[in-house]
Amino acid sequence: MSTLETSSLKLIAFDADDTLWVNEPNYVNVQQRLGDLLSHHIDQPTLSRHFYATQIRNLQLFGYGAKGFTLSMIETAIELTQGRVTGLEIQQIIDIGKELLAFPIEVLDGVRDALETLAKRFDLMVLTKGDLFDQESKIARSGLGHFFKYVEIISEKDERSYQRILQRYGLQPEEFLMIGNSLKSDVLPVLHIGAQAVHIPYVITWAHERVGEEQLQGKSFATLASMHDLLNWLEVTAD
Amino acid sequence: MSTLETSSLKLIAFDADDTLWVNEPNYVNVQQRLGDLLSHHIDQPTLSRHFYATQIRNLQLFGYGAKGFTLSMIETAIELTQGRVTGLEIQQIIDIGKELLAFPIEVLDGVRDALETLAKRFDLMVLTKGDLFDQESKIARSGLGHFFKYVEIISEKDERSYQRILQRYGLQPEEFLMIGNSLKSDVLPVLHIGAQAVHIPYVITWAHERVGEEQLQGKSFATLASMHDLLNWLEVTAD
Repeated sequence: MSTLETSSLKLIAFDADDTLWVNEPNYVNVQQRLGDLLSHHIDQPTLSRHFYATQIRNLQLFGYGAKGFTLSMIETAIELTQGRVTGLEIQQIIDIGKELLAFPIEVLDGVRDALETLAKRFDLMVLTKGDLFDQESKIARSGLGHFFKYVEIISEKDERSYQRILQRYGLQPEEFLMIGNSLKSDVLPVLHIGAQAVHIPYVITWAHERVGEEQLQGKSFATLASMHDLLNWLEVTAD
Repeated sequence: MSTLETSSLKLIAFDADDTLWVNEPNYVNVQQRLGDLLSHHIDQPTLSRHFYATQIRNLQLFGYGAKGFTLSMIETAIELTQGRVTGLEIQQIIDIGKELLAFPIEVLDGVRDALETLAKRFDLMVLTKGDLFDQESKIARSGLGHFFKYVEIISEKDERSYQRILQRYGLQPEEFLMIGNSLKSDVLPVLHIGAQAVHIPYVITWAHERVGEEQLQGKSFATLASMHDLLNWLEVTAD
Protein backbone atom coordinates (compact mmCIF):
# COMPACT_ATOMS: atom_id res chain seq x y z
CA MET A 1 0.00 0.00 0.00
CA SER A 2 2.74 2.42 0.93
CA THR A 3 4.42 4.37 -1.84
CA LEU A 4 5.74 6.95 0.57
CA GLU A 5 9.34 7.95 1.06
CA THR A 6 9.31 8.82 4.77
CA SER A 7 13.06 9.31 4.89
CA SER A 8 12.87 12.59 2.96
CA LEU A 9 9.74 13.85 4.73
CA LYS A 10 10.06 17.15 6.59
CA LEU A 11 6.61 18.63 6.90
CA ILE A 12 3.22 16.97 7.26
CA ALA A 13 0.23 19.19 6.58
CA PHE A 14 -3.26 18.32 7.77
CA ASP A 15 -6.52 19.57 6.41
CA ALA A 16 -8.76 20.69 9.28
CA ASP A 17 -12.51 20.29 8.67
CA ASP A 18 -13.55 16.61 8.58
CA THR A 19 -9.91 15.55 8.82
CA LEU A 20 -9.04 16.72 12.34
CA TRP A 21 -12.58 17.38 13.54
CA VAL A 22 -16.24 16.99 12.62
CA ASN A 23 -17.44 19.84 10.42
CA GLU A 24 -19.73 18.94 7.53
CA PRO A 25 -22.47 17.37 9.73
CA ASN A 26 -22.89 20.77 11.38
CA TYR A 27 -23.55 22.30 7.96
CA VAL A 28 -25.93 19.48 7.00
CA ASN A 29 -27.76 19.96 10.28
CA VAL A 30 -28.13 23.69 9.72
CA GLN A 31 -29.37 23.10 6.20
CA GLN A 32 -32.00 20.65 7.52
CA ARG A 33 -33.14 23.25 10.01
CA LEU A 34 -33.39 25.78 7.20
CA GLY A 35 -35.66 23.24 5.51
CA ASP A 36 -37.81 22.90 8.64
CA LEU A 37 -38.03 26.66 8.92
CA LEU A 38 -39.20 27.04 5.33
CA SER A 39 -41.29 23.83 5.20
CA HIS A 40 -44.54 25.78 4.90
CA HIS A 41 -43.11 27.52 1.82
CA ILE A 42 -41.04 24.85 0.06
CA ASP A 43 -40.13 21.14 0.00
CA GLN A 44 -36.66 19.96 1.07
CA PRO A 45 -35.38 18.62 -2.31
CA THR A 46 -36.22 21.89 -4.10
CA LEU A 47 -34.58 23.82 -1.28
CA SER A 48 -31.44 21.67 -1.39
CA ARG A 49 -31.08 22.02 -5.14
CA HIS A 50 -31.66 25.74 -5.12
CA PHE A 51 -29.43 26.34 -2.10
CA TYR A 52 -26.53 24.45 -3.65
CA ALA A 53 -26.85 26.49 -6.86
CA THR A 54 -26.89 29.73 -4.83
CA GLN A 55 -23.80 28.67 -2.89
CA ILE A 56 -21.84 27.86 -6.04
CA ARG A 57 -22.95 31.10 -7.71
CA ASN A 58 -21.82 33.09 -4.65
CA LEU A 59 -18.55 31.21 -4.17
CA GLN A 60 -16.56 33.55 -6.40
CA LEU A 61 -17.77 36.52 -4.35
CA PHE A 62 -17.94 35.04 -0.84
CA GLY A 63 -15.31 32.29 -0.88
CA TYR A 64 -15.77 29.36 1.52
CA GLY A 65 -17.06 29.59 5.05
CA ALA A 66 -19.96 30.04 7.42
CA LYS A 67 -20.71 33.71 6.74
CA GLY A 68 -21.07 33.22 3.00
CA PHE A 69 -23.08 30.05 3.74
CA THR A 70 -25.45 32.08 5.91
CA LEU A 71 -25.85 34.84 3.32
CA SER A 72 -26.61 32.17 0.71
CA MET A 73 -29.24 30.62 3.01
CA ILE A 74 -30.93 34.01 3.33
CA GLU A 75 -30.85 34.63 -0.43
CA THR A 76 -32.28 31.19 -1.07
CA ALA A 77 -35.08 31.74 1.43
CA ILE A 78 -35.99 35.09 -0.17
CA GLU A 79 -35.90 33.73 -3.70
CA LEU A 80 -37.86 30.55 -3.02
CA THR A 81 -40.58 32.41 -1.12
CA GLN A 82 -40.71 35.25 -3.65
CA GLY A 83 -39.81 37.60 -0.83
CA ARG A 84 -42.55 36.36 1.51
CA VAL A 85 -40.10 35.03 4.13
CA THR A 86 -40.48 37.30 7.16
CA GLY A 87 -37.86 39.34 8.95
CA LEU A 88 -38.23 37.13 12.00
CA GLU A 89 -37.65 33.99 9.95
CA ILE A 90 -34.52 35.58 8.49
CA GLN A 91 -33.31 36.36 12.00
CA GLN A 92 -33.73 32.65 12.78
CA ILE A 93 -31.62 31.82 9.73
CA ILE A 94 -28.90 34.20 10.94
CA ASP A 95 -29.07 32.62 14.39
CA ILE A 96 -28.58 29.09 13.08
CA GLY A 97 -25.81 30.42 10.80
CA LYS A 98 -24.07 31.88 13.84
CA GLU A 99 -24.04 28.44 15.44
CA LEU A 100 -21.70 27.38 12.63
CA LEU A 101 -19.19 29.88 13.99
CA ALA A 102 -19.29 28.58 17.54
CA PHE A 103 -20.15 24.86 17.65
CA PRO A 104 -18.11 22.72 20.07
CA ILE A 105 -15.28 20.99 18.22
CA GLU A 106 -15.44 17.20 18.21
CA VAL A 107 -11.94 15.92 17.44
CA LEU A 108 -12.01 12.83 15.22
CA ASP A 109 -10.94 9.40 16.38
CA GLY A 110 -7.20 8.81 16.59
CA VAL A 111 -6.29 12.37 15.72
CA ARG A 112 -4.86 13.45 19.05
CA ASP A 113 -2.66 10.36 19.40
CA ALA A 114 -1.38 10.60 15.85
CA LEU A 115 -0.51 14.29 16.22
CA GLU A 116 1.17 13.72 19.55
CA THR A 117 3.49 11.10 18.06
CA LEU A 118 4.12 12.80 14.74
CA ALA A 119 4.86 16.21 16.28
CA LYS A 120 7.98 14.67 17.86
CA ARG A 121 9.36 13.58 14.49
CA PHE A 122 8.12 16.11 11.92
CA ASP A 123 7.03 19.71 11.57
CA LEU A 124 3.23 19.70 11.47
CA MET A 125 1.01 22.24 9.76
CA VAL A 126 -2.71 22.94 9.66
CA LEU A 127 -3.45 23.76 6.03
CA THR A 128 -7.05 24.67 5.48
CA LYS A 129 -9.15 26.80 3.23
CA GLY A 130 -12.06 28.92 4.30
CA ASP A 131 -12.76 31.88 6.45
CA LEU A 132 -9.65 33.10 8.30
CA PHE A 133 -11.38 34.17 11.50
CA ASP A 134 -13.63 31.11 11.66
CA GLN A 135 -10.83 28.61 11.00
CA GLU A 136 -8.58 30.23 13.63
CA SER A 137 -11.42 30.01 16.09
CA LYS A 138 -11.96 26.31 15.34
CA ILE A 139 -8.24 25.56 15.81
CA ALA A 140 -8.37 27.33 19.18
CA ARG A 141 -11.57 25.52 20.20
CA SER A 142 -10.09 22.14 19.18
CA GLY A 143 -7.31 22.28 21.75
CA LEU A 144 -4.97 20.86 19.08
CA GLY A 145 -3.18 24.09 18.23
CA HIS A 146 0.01 23.31 20.17
CA PHE A 147 0.79 20.29 17.97
CA PHE A 148 1.19 22.51 14.93
CA LYS A 149 4.30 24.51 14.20
CA TYR A 150 2.54 26.31 11.34
CA VAL A 151 -1.00 27.33 10.48
CA GLU A 152 -1.86 28.30 6.91
CA ILE A 153 -5.37 29.37 6.04
CA ILE A 154 -5.76 29.92 2.33
CA SER A 155 -8.63 30.87 0.07
CA GLU A 156 -8.35 27.94 -2.36
CA LYS A 157 -6.42 24.67 -2.37
CA ASP A 158 -5.12 24.31 -5.89
CA GLU A 159 -1.73 23.50 -7.40
CA ARG A 160 -0.68 27.14 -7.31
CA SER A 161 -1.40 27.55 -3.63
CA TYR A 162 0.43 24.31 -2.74
CA GLN A 163 3.38 25.46 -4.79
CA ARG A 164 3.36 28.74 -2.88
CA ILE A 165 3.43 26.84 0.43
CA LEU A 166 6.44 24.76 -0.65
CA GLN A 167 8.21 27.92 -1.76
CA ARG A 168 7.43 29.80 1.44
CA TYR A 169 8.81 26.99 3.62
CA GLY A 170 11.73 26.19 1.31
CA LEU A 171 10.56 22.62 0.73
CA GLN A 172 11.06 20.19 -2.13
CA PRO A 173 7.91 18.31 -3.19
CA GLU A 174 9.22 15.02 -1.73
CA GLU A 175 9.62 16.69 1.67
CA PHE A 176 5.90 17.51 1.89
CA LEU A 177 2.98 15.23 2.76
CA MET A 178 -0.66 16.38 2.79
CA ILE A 179 -3.35 14.52 4.71
CA GLY A 180 -7.02 15.24 4.22
CA ASN A 181 -10.52 14.07 3.44
CA SER A 182 -11.00 15.86 0.12
CA LEU A 183 -9.67 14.25 -3.06
CA LYS A 184 -10.29 17.52 -4.87
CA SER A 185 -8.53 19.84 -2.42
CA ASP A 186 -6.15 17.70 -0.37
CA VAL A 187 -5.01 14.95 -2.72
CA LEU A 188 -5.14 15.67 -6.47
CA PRO A 189 -3.45 19.11 -6.56
CA VAL A 190 -0.74 17.83 -4.19
CA LEU A 191 0.01 14.84 -6.42
CA HIS A 192 0.02 17.12 -9.45
CA ILE A 193 2.91 19.15 -8.05
CA GLY A 194 4.90 15.97 -7.30
CA ALA A 195 4.32 15.89 -3.55
CA GLN A 196 2.62 13.13 -1.60
CA ALA A 197 -0.87 12.86 -0.18
CA VAL A 198 -2.92 10.56 2.03
CA HIS A 199 -6.68 10.41 1.69
CA ILE A 200 -8.71 9.80 4.85
CA PRO A 201 -12.31 9.93 3.61
CA TYR A 202 -14.95 11.30 5.91
CA VAL A 203 -18.42 9.82 6.08
CA ILE A 204 -19.95 12.73 4.17
CA THR A 205 -18.42 15.02 1.55
CA TRP A 206 -19.85 18.31 0.35
CA ALA A 207 -20.97 17.90 -3.28
CA HIS A 208 -18.58 20.63 -4.40
CA GLU A 209 -15.57 18.62 -3.16
CA ARG A 210 -16.45 15.40 -4.99
CA VAL A 211 -14.41 14.28 -7.98
CA GLY A 212 -15.15 11.76 -10.71
CA GLU A 213 -13.29 8.45 -10.65
CA GLU A 214 -11.75 9.22 -14.03
CA GLN A 215 -9.71 11.97 -12.36
CA LEU A 216 -8.03 9.38 -10.16
CA GLN A 217 -6.60 7.37 -13.06
CA GLY A 218 -2.84 6.95 -12.88
CA LYS A 219 -2.61 8.58 -9.46
CA SER A 220 -0.70 6.97 -6.57
CA PHE A 221 -1.79 7.71 -3.05
CA ALA A 222 -2.93 5.87 0.04
CA THR A 223 -6.44 5.87 1.39
CA LEU A 224 -6.67 5.18 5.11
CA ALA A 225 -9.75 4.35 7.14
CA SER A 226 -8.92 6.75 9.95
CA MET A 227 -6.13 8.68 11.57
CA HIS A 228 -5.49 5.53 13.69
CA ASP A 229 -3.88 3.93 10.64
CA LEU A 230 -1.60 6.84 9.87
CA LEU A 231 1.25 5.95 12.23
CA ASN A 232 1.39 2.38 10.94
CA TRP A 233 1.34 3.55 7.40
CA LEU A 234 4.13 6.02 8.08
CA GLU A 235 5.95 3.28 10.00
CA VAL A 236 6.27 5.65 12.92
CA THR A 237 5.89 4.17 16.38
CA ALA A 238 4.84 6.04 19.50
CA ASP A 239 7.60 5.99 22.13
CA MET B 1 10.65 64.62 12.06
CA SER B 2 12.50 61.43 11.21
CA THR B 3 13.37 59.09 14.02
CA LEU B 4 13.86 56.19 11.66
CA GLU B 5 16.94 54.06 11.25
CA THR B 6 16.72 53.24 7.55
CA SER B 7 20.10 51.55 7.50
CA SER B 8 18.81 48.53 9.44
CA LEU B 9 15.51 48.35 7.59
CA LYS B 10 14.77 45.10 5.73
CA LEU B 11 11.02 44.82 5.34
CA ILE B 12 8.37 47.51 4.90
CA ALA B 13 4.80 46.39 5.51
CA PHE B 14 1.81 48.34 4.24
CA ASP B 15 -1.71 48.24 5.53
CA ALA B 16 -4.12 47.90 2.60
CA ASP B 17 -7.55 49.50 3.14
CA ASP B 18 -7.34 53.31 3.21
CA THR B 19 -3.54 53.13 3.05
CA LEU B 20 -3.03 51.71 -0.45
CA TRP B 21 -6.56 52.24 -1.74
CA VAL B 22 -9.91 53.82 -0.89
CA ASN B 23 -12.02 51.52 1.28
CA GLU B 24 -13.95 53.13 4.12
CA PRO B 25 -15.98 55.50 1.87
CA ASN B 26 -17.47 52.42 0.20
CA TYR B 27 -18.65 51.21 3.61
CA VAL B 28 -19.99 54.66 4.52
CA ASN B 29 -21.83 54.80 1.20
CA VAL B 30 -23.39 51.38 1.75
CA GLN B 31 -24.45 52.37 5.24
CA GLN B 32 -26.11 55.52 3.87
CA ARG B 33 -27.99 53.44 1.34
CA LEU B 34 -29.10 51.14 4.16
CA GLY B 35 -30.45 54.30 5.81
CA ASP B 36 -32.30 55.30 2.63
CA LEU B 37 -33.73 51.81 2.33
CA LEU B 38 -35.03 51.87 5.90
CA SER B 39 -35.95 55.58 6.01
CA HIS B 40 -39.69 54.79 6.23
CA HIS B 41 -38.96 52.69 9.33
CA ILE B 42 -36.18 54.55 11.15
CA ASP B 43 -34.09 57.76 11.23
CA GLN B 44 -30.42 57.73 10.24
CA PRO B 45 -28.84 58.59 13.65
CA THR B 46 -30.75 55.79 15.39
CA LEU B 47 -29.78 53.41 12.62
CA SER B 48 -26.10 54.42 12.80
CA ARG B 49 -25.96 53.99 16.55
CA HIS B 50 -27.71 50.65 16.50
CA PHE B 51 -25.75 49.35 13.53
CA TYR B 52 -22.42 50.19 15.16
CA ALA B 53 -23.47 48.37 18.34
CA THR B 54 -24.52 45.33 16.30
CA GLN B 55 -21.21 45.31 14.42
CA ILE B 56 -19.17 45.44 17.62
CA ARG B 57 -21.30 42.75 19.25
CA ASN B 58 -20.82 40.48 16.21
CA LEU B 59 -17.10 41.19 15.81
CA GLN B 60 -16.03 38.33 18.09
CA LEU B 61 -18.10 35.93 15.98
CA PHE B 62 -17.70 37.37 12.49
CA GLY B 63 -14.33 39.12 12.58
CA TYR B 64 -13.75 42.04 10.19
CA GLY B 65 -14.97 42.21 6.62
CA ALA B 66 -17.80 42.71 4.18
CA LYS B 67 -19.73 39.50 4.83
CA GLY B 68 -19.99 40.10 8.58
CA PHE B 69 -20.84 43.75 7.80
CA THR B 70 -23.69 42.60 5.57
CA LEU B 71 -25.03 40.12 8.14
CA SER B 72 -24.92 42.90 10.76
CA MET B 73 -26.86 45.22 8.40
CA ILE B 74 -29.55 42.57 8.04
CA GLU B 75 -29.74 41.96 11.79
CA THR B 76 -29.99 45.70 12.42
CA ALA B 77 -32.77 46.08 9.86
CA ILE B 78 -34.75 43.22 11.42
CA GLU B 79 -34.30 44.48 14.98
CA LEU B 80 -35.09 48.13 14.26
CA THR B 81 -38.23 47.25 12.29
CA GLN B 82 -39.36 44.62 14.81
CA GLY B 83 -39.21 42.10 11.99
CA ARG B 84 -41.33 44.16 9.59
CA VAL B 85 -38.53 44.61 7.05
CA THR B 86 -39.55 42.56 4.01
CA GLY B 87 -37.72 39.77 2.26
CA LEU B 88 -37.28 41.98 -0.80
CA GLU B 89 -35.74 44.77 1.30
CA ILE B 90 -33.34 42.24 2.81
CA GLN B 91 -32.38 41.08 -0.68
CA GLN B 92 -31.55 44.73 -1.46
CA ILE B 93 -29.35 44.83 1.64
CA ILE B 94 -27.53 41.69 0.47
CA ASP B 95 -27.10 43.23 -2.98
CA ILE B 96 -25.50 46.42 -1.63
CA GLY B 97 -23.38 44.28 0.69
CA LYS B 98 -22.15 42.30 -2.31
CA GLU B 99 -20.97 45.54 -3.91
CA LEU B 100 -18.46 45.78 -1.04
CA LEU B 101 -16.88 42.59 -2.36
CA ALA B 102 -16.48 43.84 -5.91
CA PHE B 103 -16.06 47.63 -6.02
CA PRO B 104 -13.38 48.98 -8.38
CA ILE B 105 -10.18 49.69 -6.48
CA GLU B 106 -9.10 53.35 -6.45
CA VAL B 107 -5.38 53.41 -5.60
CA LEU B 108 -4.50 56.35 -3.38
CA ASP B 109 -2.35 59.24 -4.50
CA GLY B 110 1.39 58.58 -4.62
CA VAL B 111 1.07 54.92 -3.75
CA ARG B 112 2.13 53.42 -7.05
CA ASP B 113 5.24 55.61 -7.34
CA ALA B 114 6.28 54.99 -3.76
CA LEU B 115 5.90 51.22 -4.13
CA GLU B 116 7.76 51.18 -7.41
CA THR B 117 10.77 52.91 -5.87
CA LEU B 118 10.73 51.12 -2.54
CA ALA B 119 10.35 47.66 -4.09
CA LYS B 120 13.85 48.08 -5.57
CA ARG B 121 15.41 48.66 -2.17
CA PHE B 122 13.38 46.70 0.35
CA ASP B 123 11.17 43.65 0.67
CA LEU B 124 7.58 44.90 0.68
CA MET B 125 4.60 43.23 2.33
CA VAL B 126 0.86 43.80 2.36
CA LEU B 127 -0.18 43.27 5.96
CA THR B 128 -3.89 43.59 6.43
CA LYS B 129 -6.62 42.28 8.63
CA GLY B 130 -10.03 41.21 7.50
CA ASP B 131 -11.60 38.63 5.31
CA LEU B 132 -9.04 36.47 3.52
CA PHE B 133 -10.96 36.00 0.29
CA ASP B 134 -12.07 39.63 0.09
CA GLN B 135 -8.62 41.07 0.81
CA GLU B 136 -6.96 38.80 -1.76
CA SER B 137 -9.53 39.93 -4.29
CA LYS B 138 -8.83 43.60 -3.54
CA ILE B 139 -5.08 43.09 -3.93
CA ALA B 140 -5.71 41.44 -7.30
CA ARG B 141 -8.11 44.19 -8.41
CA SER B 142 -5.64 46.92 -7.31
CA GLY B 143 -3.00 45.86 -9.84
CA LEU B 144 -0.38 46.45 -7.11
CA GLY B 145 0.23 42.82 -6.24
CA HIS B 146 3.55 42.51 -8.09
CA PHE B 147 5.22 45.12 -5.87
CA PHE B 148 4.81 42.90 -2.82
CA LYS B 149 7.07 40.00 -2.04
CA TYR B 150 4.77 38.89 0.76
CA VAL B 151 1.07 39.08 1.56
CA GLU B 152 -0.14 38.46 5.09
CA ILE B 153 -3.83 38.60 5.89
CA ILE B 154 -4.46 38.21 9.59
CA SER B 155 -7.54 38.27 11.78
CA GLU B 156 -6.36 40.95 14.23
CA LYS B 157 -3.48 43.42 14.31
CA ASP B 158 -2.20 43.34 17.84
CA GLU B 159 1.23 43.00 19.44
CA ARG B 160 1.03 39.22 19.37
CA SER B 161 0.29 39.07 15.66
CA TYR B 162 3.10 41.51 14.82
CA GLN B 163 5.48 39.46 16.93
CA ARG B 164 4.43 36.36 15.02
CA ILE B 165 5.18 38.13 11.72
CA LEU B 166 8.69 39.11 12.88
CA GLN B 167 9.31 35.56 14.01
CA ARG B 168 8.04 34.03 10.80
CA TYR B 169 10.30 36.23 8.66
CA GLY B 170 13.27 36.04 11.02
CA LEU B 171 13.31 39.81 11.59
CA GLN B 172 14.54 41.95 14.46
CA PRO B 173 12.14 44.77 15.44
CA GLU B 174 14.48 47.43 14.02
CA GLU B 175 14.37 45.71 10.64
CA PHE B 176 10.61 46.14 10.33
CA LEU B 177 8.60 49.25 9.40
CA MET B 178 4.79 49.35 9.29
CA ILE B 179 2.90 51.98 7.32
CA GLY B 180 -0.82 52.51 7.72
CA ASN B 181 -3.77 54.74 8.43
CA SER B 182 -4.86 53.23 11.74
CA LEU B 183 -3.16 54.32 14.95
CA LYS B 184 -4.85 51.45 16.74
CA SER B 185 -3.89 48.68 14.31
CA ASP B 186 -0.89 49.90 12.32
CA VAL B 187 1.03 52.16 14.72
CA LEU B 188 0.58 51.53 18.44
CA PRO B 189 1.06 47.72 18.57
CA VAL B 190 4.08 48.04 16.27
CA LEU B 191 5.72 50.62 18.53
CA HIS B 192 4.92 48.48 21.54
CA ILE B 193 7.03 45.60 20.21
CA GLY B 194 9.95 47.94 19.52
CA ALA B 195 9.51 48.22 15.75
CA GLN B 196 8.85 51.38 13.76
CA ALA B 197 5.67 52.76 12.26
CA VAL B 198 4.54 55.59 10.02
CA HIS B 199 1.02 56.97 10.27
CA ILE B 200 -0.62 58.19 7.07
CA PRO B 201 -4.08 59.25 8.22
CA TYR B 202 -6.98 58.81 5.87
CA VAL B 203 -9.79 61.34 5.62
CA ILE B 204 -12.22 59.08 7.51
CA THR B 205 -11.57 56.46 10.15
CA TRP B 206 -14.02 53.81 11.32
CA ALA B 207 -15.02 54.58 14.91
CA HIS B 208 -13.69 51.20 16.08
CA GLU B 209 -10.16 52.13 14.92
CA ARG B 210 -9.98 55.47 16.72
CA VAL B 211 -7.75 55.87 19.77
CA GLY B 212 -7.69 58.48 22.51
CA GLU B 213 -4.87 61.02 22.48
CA GLU B 214 -3.73 59.80 25.89
CA GLN B 215 -2.66 56.53 24.26
CA LEU B 216 -0.17 58.43 22.10
CA GLN B 217 1.76 59.89 25.04
CA GLY B 218 5.44 59.05 24.94
CA LYS B 219 5.20 57.43 21.52
CA SER B 220 7.61 58.32 18.68
CA PHE B 221 6.42 57.93 15.15
CA ALA B 222 6.01 60.03 12.02
CA THR B 223 2.71 61.19 10.59
CA LEU B 224 2.81 61.88 6.87
CA ALA B 225 0.22 63.69 4.75
CA SER B 226 0.28 61.13 1.99
CA MET B 227 2.33 58.37 0.42
CA HIS B 228 4.01 61.12 -1.67
CA ASP B 229 5.98 62.13 1.40
CA LEU B 230 7.17 58.65 2.22
CA LEU B 231 10.21 58.54 -0.07
CA ASN B 232 11.48 61.88 1.21
CA TRP B 233 10.97 60.80 4.75
CA LEU B 234 12.81 57.54 4.15
CA GLU B 235 15.50 59.53 2.27
CA VAL B 236 15.06 57.18 -0.63
CA THR B 237 15.24 58.68 -4.11
CA ALA B 238 13.73 57.23 -7.24
CA ASP B 239 16.42 56.35 -9.81
